[in-house]
Amino acid sequence: MEGDMSQSFRSLASKIVCIGRNYKDHALELGNAIPKKPMLFLKSSNAFVEEGQPILIPPGCQNLHQEVELGVVIGKKAKNVAKNEALSYVSGYTVALDMTARDFQDEAKKAGAPWFLAKSFDTSCPVGTFIPKEKINDPHDEELYCIINGQEKQRCRTNVMIFDIPTIIEYITQFVTLEPGDLVLTGTPAGVSRVNSGDVIEFGLSGKLQAKFHVQ
Amino acid sequence: MEGDMSQSFRSLASKIVCIGRNYKDHALELGNAIPKKPMLFLKSSNAFVEEGQPILIPPGCQNLHQEVELGVVIGKKAKNVAKNEALSYVSGYTVALDMTARDFQDEAKKAGAPWFLAKSFDTSCPVGTFIPKEKINDPHDEELYCIINGQEKQRCRTNVMIFDIPTIIEYITQFVTLEPGDLVLTGTPAGVSRVNSGDVIEFGLSGKLQAKFHVQ
Ligand SMILES: [Mg+2]
Ligand SMILES: [Mg+2]
Ligand SMILES: [Mg+2]
Repeated sequence: MEGDMSQSFRSLASKIVCIGRNYKDHALELGNAIPKKPMLFLKSSNAFVEEGQPILIPPGCQNLHQEVELGVVIGKKAKNVAKNEALSYVSGYTVALDMTARDFQDEAKKAGAPWFLAKSFDTSCPVGTFIPKEKINDPHDEELYCIINGQEKQRCRTNVMIFDIPTIIEYITQFVTLEPGDLVLTGTPAGVSRVNSGDVIEFGLSGKLQAKFHVQ
Repeated sequence: MEGDMSQSFRSLASKIVCIGRNYKDHALELGNAIPKKPMLFLKSSNAFVEEGQPILIPPGCQNLHQEVELGVVIGKKAKNVAKNEALSYVSGYTVALDMTARDFQDEAKKAGAPWFLAKSFDTSCPVGTFIPKEKINDPHDEELYCIINGQEKQRCRTNVMIFDIPTIIEYITQFVTLEPGDLVLTGTPAGVSRVNSGDVIEFGLSGKLQAKFHVQ
């Protein structure tokens, strides 16, 4: 039983589960090791922001970064899903920014503290529109891009993810149920950078989806 | 506009925002410093488990701990709420366990990694029933307790919280909107301990609320 997700998955999502360091070049650009298992964190649905609404810089943040990521939209309740069944739980895809208060995150990493404030502040998940899975032949053969103020910052094919989508879904659902409408963000390639008030961020999946947001 | 939360807040909650290290004796028992600002983390609504359903040990966890906590139930949408207005956004209270995979958390703390798997696995938030705020004269003058297999593990008055409820709500809502039904867990006193398959955990607010769960 798959729900009708077209355009409405943002209101249906109960949560956003994100993978960190899933592209080798991005892990290395921040001085992190290549993970041996998926590194998971959570954004609440209050993180969502849609086109037409601004991205806000959280109070006290001096180093807000954009991370463009392929989003996987869950179509039916998923718990203890085997890798070879995982894609049947997917209703479609989108592209989102995992906005990150890098200074808050650096402080948390040093202190061994949780990442909540660095990752789940209001507007930390600007998101594009829903693409039904029928329109994506192979989610590991797409191209992500992100352009800020007309300058290209990120462009990468999704075939270089460290953990592929079935592996990620199998891993998450060992621990946590994914609900219809939930969004899984699959990690960002290299090229994250500081964004500032007034910046225009354009991002998408080449030939399939584009989105544009302003930083307030 | 406050919703009717009686008995149904668990299905209304879009998220659970938790405070770590909000009782000095508990911070010290785990060898942590006393925090200078509230330390926040997130559980998804999939963490909820109600009486009659078992607490599950997440796969691979060798050291699951219970943490009994006063829960604050939000009654109306709250963003940028001042401390002196904060309690008017509260519809009531409950008691919950912040179940923690302490071994997963120790690993995350060492690695500077997020706490998601340690804190937000399915059944990581066993929760009691809703108490309307009219029945709690002063939430900072109540007594929490937790008894495992008949043996008292935690008992503490809520007047020794490091950050009080208005301070916590003001701090959270600078960054994140709280929605009606959302649950804020206010931290645990000393006495957290390992729980095992077959254990019976009884916890509550003395004279006001009791709940009982089994660990499967
Ligand atoms: Mg990311
Ligand atoms: Mg976290
Ligand atoms: Mg706790």
